[in-house]
Amino acid sequence: MTVFRWADTDAAAIVPLLTPEAAADPERTVRAYAAAVWSCLIEPGDAVAGALIAALGPDVALREILGGARDPSAVDAAALDPPDLRAALGRWRPRLQSEAIAFALDVARTCGARLITPDDPVWPLALADLGPYAPVCLWVRGDCDVLGRLDPAVAIVGARAATGYGEHIAAELAADLAGRGVAVVSGAAYGIDGAAHRAALAAGGTTVAMLAGGVDRPYPAGHADLLRRIAETGVVAAEVPCGWAPTKWRFLQRNRTIAALGGATVVVEAGTRSGSLNTAGHAATLGRPIGAVPGPVTSGSSAGCHRLLREFDARCVTCADEVAELLGLAGDDPAVFSGAHTDDDTRVLDALSTRSARTVEQIAARCGMAVDEVTARLGMMALDGRAQAQGAGWRRAAAAAVG
Amino acid sequence: MTVFRWADTDAAAIVPLLTPEAAADPERTVRAYAAAVWSCLIEPGDAVAGALIAALGPDVALREILGGARDPSAVDAAALDPPDLRAALGRWRPRLQSEAIAFALDVARTCGARLITPDDPVWPLALADLGPYAPVCLWVRGDCDVLGRLDPAVAIVGARAATGYGEHIAAELAADLAGRGVAVVSGAAYGIDGAAHRAALAAGGTTVAMLAGGVDRPYPAGHADLLRRIAETGVVAAEVPCGWAPTKWRFLQRNRTIAALGGATVVVEAGTRSGSLNTAGHAATLGRPIGAVPGPVTSGSSAGCHRLLREFDARCVTCADEVAELLGLAGDDPAVFSGAHTDDDTRVLDALSTRSARTVEQIAARCGMAVDEVTARLGMMALDGRAQAQGAGWRRAAAAAVG
Repeated sequence: MTVFRWADTDAAAIVPLLTPEAAADPERTVRAYAAAVWSCLIEPGDAVAGALIAALGPDVALREILGGARDPSAVDAAALDPPDLRAALGRWRPRLQSEAIAFALDVARTCGARLITPDDPVWPLALADLGPYAPVCLWVRGDCDVLGRLDPAVAIVGARAATGYGEHIAAELAADLAGRGVAVVSGAAYGIDGAAHRAALAAGGTTVAMLAGGVDRPYPAGHADLLRRIAETGVVAAEVPCGWAPTKWRFLQRNRTIAALGGATVVVEAGTRSGSLNTAGHAATLGRPIGAVPGPVTSGSSAGCHRLLREFDARCVTCADEVAELLGLAGDDPAVFSGAHTDDDTRVLDALSTRSARTVEQIAARCGMAVDEVTARLGMMALDGRAQAQGAGWRRAAAAAVG
Repeated sequence: MTVFRWADTDAAAIVPLLTPEAAADPERTVRAYAAAVWSCLIEPGDAVAGALIAALGPDVALREILGGARDPSAVDAAALDPPDLRAALGRWRPRLQSEAIAFALDVARTCGARLITPDDPVWPLALADLGPYAPVCLWVRGDCDVLGRLDPAVAIVGARAATGYGEHIAAELAADLAGRGVAVVSGAAYGIDGAAHRAALAAGGTTVAMLAGGVDRPYPAGHADLLRRIAETGVVAAEVPCGWAPTKWRFLQRNRTIAALGGATVVVEAGTRSGSLNTAGHAATLGRPIGAVPGPVTSGSSAGCHRLLREFDARCVTCADEVAELLGLAGDDPAVFSGAHTDDDTRVLDALSTRSARTVEQIAARCGMAVDEVTARLGMMALDGRAQAQGAGWRRAAAAAVG
């Protein structure tokens, strides 16, 4: 094992992974290389690294921690507590291995991955909402330009152990939204995630699969073909380098990027321990709206959704229109309950018969209203066809059914 | 038709309908008689009548409107606008028929009904929340004492066109709550209402059926036997006199008494035009909590429940415990999402193998943590059995599964 030093920086190694524009700019190339190295040192969601990189840029930040600092006060600019920084150096040090870094770049080149950083115009601005917890870069397979078109986007997630009902609803929502130009972001898992990706593809829409491990490793293996198809028109992305395994920690952190990329997160089905509830939790932290699709209360696969509705103020969503509303794409049209339509007309109608005519006095007694008032109402109802005069009395027109 | 006058007052006619205590008290008898007459003059929810009766008592109020006033300023005490009062007199006048009033009392005696008024100790205090819209009396079949034991009570309502799912859930909730001593109030309709009543009876609990028409008229006719069984141990009640037909207006107003009697209203299944949404609306007006049972979004029978969740801030309820919570009978126990349990232990566990031992340095590199920190975590994990030391390294205990 060779300890990686600033002098080992080999920016040329990153060039094949960059967009032509980034590769043509020596400064961006160095910064991209440093970002790639950073992603090999940290676990996702390392806020000390995030703060340091935000303050200094990835290249200067890396040089600082490698002891190659030309300006010893540079680290102070990140406003980090010295103990936090010491602890962080302690956890980064075991990974300062030249071989491991070179290996990650090798695997990326071999599998045709690209490296996208905040310097790239297509970098999704939504990730900035993660603050110091944002990824330092994304390793990407597919059409990188898609990353620049994720507004609007919706995260559709849910249980691996989904039911036919859940997969059906996930597919309906994803297809409808993708057809309206909303990108569908999910995690490529079995069940709800897969149904959402597949339906978005089938609708000719854009879909993004965020992986917890390296993009060279299709996960789950049974979705290798689905991931290949996603990469043909959309994007398969990860913040951990190629070659890295998905771990529980990385799944949970991956969920925060799904929540951040979606303008809203919709949980279609989830058991009470489903990882999709973690995604919803990240969405809540980010202030993104959460939608939950209800289901039978007898179905354990909907229990997590019901819990989101009960305890986490998720919005009940039952169709794509309601998700669009959650994304701010549609106006709300709050109609009144038709059952609540209770007025004097109702009382007069109640008092009419379709079979026999009744006098105004009889009608007034039946409905408990004054004779003058009943006369006036009957006149209006005659105009709109709900009542008919007959001899000295009135009867209800056949079409005016009792509700 | 004979116009009813104060001189026609025949308090003796009401005696057979009263409790022994009320019948033994001449003043209560006159007041009960007047309340019965009032219920023959007004439609449910007549706030002018309610205000007048609240200010003067039913007997004095009745004498006032019948022109038999001894104190002409008495009506002023009700603080009613003169135009409101004039309009009310206009709508009450067509019903001032001696025969109609005598008929209502006759029918009540024949069918064995009782008259319960706010003077009776069993009068449900919850109705007072309706203010001037409260019933002036209740016509009751069954065990009147049950009315004094409606705290706690829950209104369980829903669609007539219920599905097997909805009826199953209504029955489960009603049986469980009735078994805990919660009275189940509903409207005796087909579908959800019937399932709730039946299950409450089967559980040996208390149930109350509020009818829109007179208690002498089983409605719907197909529930005549159910209503008879309810009256054996519980109560069948109406605010309209015996002999009166249920009308649309009376259904809608009946719903307000169901909402008022329930400490919370739970809608189990409802189409978007279900009358149970009207009951929920009354509950909201009264500040009573509303629960809605979710169902498949593909089921029209749950669409009204989902609308309550989306637009009316109803609480999602999936079991009797959650309804009990709505009634304030159970403490909330907000557990954390188990999926959100992400800490350094998770990262260390991720880095361990069950098959081969790894050195602390290897583990530190894998999980991106400092060697000292990993050593400390491993020590704790050895104590609780999640990790095992093996040779110079560590491995994961087989029982510590990845979540």
